[in-house]
Amino acid sequence: MQIDDAETKAEVEAAFARYEAALVGNDVATLEALFHDDPRTIRYGVGENLYGMDAIRAFRRSRSPQGLDRSLSDTVITTYGRDYAVAMTLFRRTNAPGKVGRQSQTWVRFPEGWRVVAAHVSVIEGE
Amino acid sequence: MQIDDAETKAEVEAAFARYEAALVGNDVATLEALFHDDPRTIRYGVGENLYGMDAIRAFRRSRSPQGLDRSLSDTVITTYGRDYAVAMTLFRRTNAPGKVGRQSQTWVRFPEGWRVVAAHVSVIEGE
Repeated sequence: MQIDDAETKAEVEAAFARYEAALVGNDVATLEALFHDDPRTIRYGVGENLYGMDAIRAFRRSRSPQGLDRSLSDTVITTYGRDYAVAMTLFRRTNAPGKVGRQSQTWVRFPEGWRVVAAHVSVIEGE
Repeated sequence: MQIDDAETKAEVEAAFARYEAALVGNDVATLEALFHDDPRTIRYGVGENLYGMDAIRAFRRSRSPQGLDRSLSDTVITTYGRDYAVAMTLFRRTNAPGKVGRQSQTWVRFPEGWRVVAAHVSVIEGE
């Protein structure tokens, strides 16, 4: 199993960038499309635990589109083989000084493309 | 790619159970052995962001062994193909009433066995 195959990594980086743009822009359709549509897909959010794509969709569609802008740091994307990847990043928002967010995603390549099968977002104290 | 192949799932469930027993028992050697020994392994903990196995090891070795007991719920382990899995679980501690923990792990099968390549632990308000 090759770790960080260049072509695979470029694909996941592109998917990750597309997700980030959709998140900041509150492009709910793209956010939903980039998660694997399956009851086994799980997202632990900043304040909620979402089991299954139905729960994730309901949350996305009711979310306030305000204050989503953020800056990323310490982003590391690592691929394992041709079909699996992990994307880890810290983020900060100007409207939340003194806090640092952490976002982790597990990506899998399906016939329809790269999709997130598990995600976890949390916020802690930090510079 | 088969999701939740029975044999693969049983292997990851066993590794997950071994990790949980080591965590509650503060068996640091086993906890370290079950993480992939690599600078790309990342663990976002309850209050710290650990990049690379060296940082993870240093944290484990300095951690207080008190109050680690916990009960799990809503544990979902999903395998993708033969070599990749995600383990998501909630946890509660009797010394932290009103809080719910979330632990997510991405597991990869290496020649030496199943290892965690990414983990994220956080605690939020909850029943």
